[in-house]
Amino acid sequence: MNDLVWHHLHLCPRGNPDEVIRDCALAVHDGKLVWLGPAQALPVQYAAWPREDLGGAWVTPSLVDCHTHLVYAGQRADEFALRLAGASYEEIARRGGGIVSTVRATRAADEETLLRASAARLEPLLAEGVGAIEIKSGYGLELASERRMLRVARELARRYPVSVYTTFLGAHALPPEFAGRADAYIDEVCERMLPALADEGLVDAVDVFCERIGFTLAQSERVFEAAARRNLPVKMHAEQLSLMGGSALAARYRALSTDHLEFLDEAGVAAMKEAGTVAVLLPGAFYFIRETQLPPIELLRRYEVPIAIATDSNPGTSPATSLLAMLNLGCTLFRLTVPEVLQGVTTHAARALGQSARHGVLEVGREADFVAWSVDTLAELAYWIGRPLAARVVRAGVTVHRAQWPQAAGAFTKAEGA
Amino acid sequence: MNDLVWHHLHLCPRGNPDEVIRDCALAVHDGKLVWLGPAQALPVQYAAWPREDLGGAWVTPSLVDCHTHLVYAGQRADEFALRLAGASYEEIARRGGGIVSTVRATRAADEETLLRASAARLEPLLAEGVGAIEIKSGYGLELASERRMLRVARELARRYPVSVYTTFLGAHALPPEFAGRADAYIDEVCERMLPALADEGLVDAVDVFCERIGFTLAQSERVFEAAARRNLPVKMHAEQLSLMGGSALAARYRALSTDHLEFLDEAGVAAMKEAGTVAVLLPGAFYFIRETQLPPIELLRRYEVPIAIATDSNPGTSPATSLLAMLNLGCTLFRLTVPEVLQGVTTHAARALGQSARHGVLEVGREADFVAWSVDTLAELAYWIGRPLAARVVRAGVTVHRAQWPQAAGAFTKAEGA
Ligand SMILES: [Zn+2]
Ligand SMILES: [Zn+2]
Repeated sequence: MNDLVWHHLHLCPRGNPDEVIRDCALAVHDGKLVWLGPAQALPVQYAAWPREDLGGAWVTPSLVDCHTHLVYAGQRADEFALRLAGASYEEIARRGGGIVSTVRATRAADEETLLRASAARLEPLLAEGVGAIEIKSGYGLELASERRMLRVARELARRYPVSVYTTFLGAHALPPEFAGRADAYIDEVCERMLPALADEGLVDAVDVFCERIGFTLAQSERVFEAAARRNLPVKMHAEQLSLMGGSALAARYRALSTDHLEFLDEAGVAAMKEAGTVAVLLPGAFYFIRETQLPPIELLRRYEVPIAIATDSNPGTSPATSLLAMLNLGCTLFRLTVPEVLQGVTTHAARALGQSARHGVLEVGREADFVAWSVDTLAELAYWIGRPLAARVVRAGVTVHRAQWPQAAGAFTKAEGA
Repeated sequence: MNDLVWHHLHLCPRGNPDEVIRDCALAVHDGKLVWLGPAQALPVQYAAWPREDLGGAWVTPSLVDCHTHLVYAGQRADEFALRLAGASYEEIARRGGGIVSTVRATRAADEETLLRASAARLEPLLAEGVGAIEIKSGYGLELASERRMLRVARELARRYPVSVYTTFLGAHALPPEFAGRADAYIDEVCERMLPALADEGLVDAVDVFCERIGFTLAQSERVFEAAARRNLPVKMHAEQLSLMGGSALAARYRALSTDHLEFLDEAGVAAMKEAGTVAVLLPGAFYFIRETQLPPIELLRRYEVPIAIATDSNPGTSPATSLLAMLNLGCTLFRLTVPEVLQGVTTHAARALGQSARHGVLEVGREADFVAWSVDTLAELAYWIGRPLAARVVRAGVTVHRAQWPQAAGAFTKAEGA
């Protein structure tokens, strides 16, 4: 299927619902878009190509999930249940809960176990239309386990129709064996772990968790310097629980993004604007841990800082495997608009990965990576709660996933006498 | 497949995770459970039956969604987008939004259109393990359209492996043609619509929206009296936006449930307890319209009023097609415990429908309606955000749905060169 014309579709080429082509056609040759525009203007040279009818679907670029901790072992559902039953943090820690439980499980898991657990979380994202995903390390917190996490992230890209961008997040938390010696752990991160993993080609970017309960500004800067020595782009978990000034620091290092940002101030916003840093908002974590401080959306708008949103998929604060759920949470809790959340998972999310040239936009010359949605209006992508909407997921011109419903033959068996 | 032993499973027979049978077996004959218990205690007479291995899955009764407005035409996603973009309620009304837009679309839709739209919302619920669902009328607001909604609800039960319980909610809102004449509309509901629809066998229960923006206590009572004359059980949308005392009234009519209940007071709770009325909480609506008044969970616990939760699936205040999402919202926003939300969609939800004998529990003599979950612990059902977890859905002993993932052969195609 080298040549194909997709038709009977409405196209939203940049994730902006105010910029669409109705009754559009897409001509794809060898996986790349060679023409797009109103169907009636299809040039004669494509008229004889085979055709695929999308039945009036809306089409957007494949979605981009630009902040995840998808690779880990175990889950923390029993901890969630215990907390709801009234257990204190001490009690949960005594029972082995918290991030250390994920670190313990991840360190103990072999590559195959880690791969299977992570694949099971990746699959619902792909079925929803995610075509590019960032995956962080950060539950190993020692070289061999961080390597295993990143190798699994790379392996997922080999096994599934998705682009994976890896982020080394050795500075995620202080491992138990470095208790009270955070600077020594940062030495380890900068001098041993990062160089080794970068040499192995496992690191596309470097992240740090800058927070009172994470690492200081000075420690974060050391990580950024180590990244700069390797010419690796940086990003930061910043201002989630308090204003640390991490965003301004990250902007000085031309960070791709700073993420969370609930406590971000105007100086930080201005610095991000100046540096071209994307604001990645994570409404799943905000919701799940019941934060009350809203990120400064109006400031971000006023300074025209691009806003992305992502799942932050992780076992402790956002056990999410749906990016569409984040659209709904972003609109409902943050009052983001529908154009903001749609661009937040396409163009702006691609930019947060430094991959604007590859993802987030459909235009001639690019790979034909797109999603055909069973919706009447694009706003439905943000409106529904828990409704599967992707009818088809297409990568490099090939249908890599089809929805089981609606009304697909055989999806449901009517039991006799039921 | 008249005789079958299901094994290699852990059973939670009543939706209470504190009451489970590990390494359980289920013997099913002609769709009914004839034995359940620890696999090693399986009586010799079942030893030669064919076997089905569930791979260590957790098994619960099929889920029950006891409050939905699933049947309607159109959606209100553009209205959602407009509101986020700053449009006022007046502007949205001027553009034809609000409940009247759903009434208009539903009145205009023929039965087949309504059926297809509703089936597309039902399917994700069934794939998630819902085996019984309540569906209300209330977007027709005149006899022919209310009839069409209820007929579609009945037709869904014929086409899909699900039990449907219909509720006549003629008293949902005042139709435009009765503006300023609410009492005259209640006459129409009680004297014409309800008798006609009940005679046609379309009404399993009767509901009313008792609220300042809905109907008064006196009007609600007239509806209840009309239902009582037909020996139909009643329920009520009560105390969602203000304390009207509807729950106490409903309790006097031995209501199956009162629903929403954010403003419920202790007198209402006591009346519900006395009447055996179930408290149906609707966290999706609470979330979507950003309510701040929490339902009185502690009072409900203290009085031991059974709590159910449901999707309230509807286009204006809870565009939800996931009951598992409601478990997560119920835990996160209402601080319900995991046992509470699990019983809230099994035993207690069945009771809210007056169907305790038929749904919500797995025991010998009942139909083998159950779900096998891809989880390590039952708490995962409430913990994940947007993760498909039902591996198999079984109705009357027959597998009626299988998950497409994880790792199902052919669910994803790896595009060449991608
Ligand atoms: Zn994160
Ligand atoms: Zn309702």
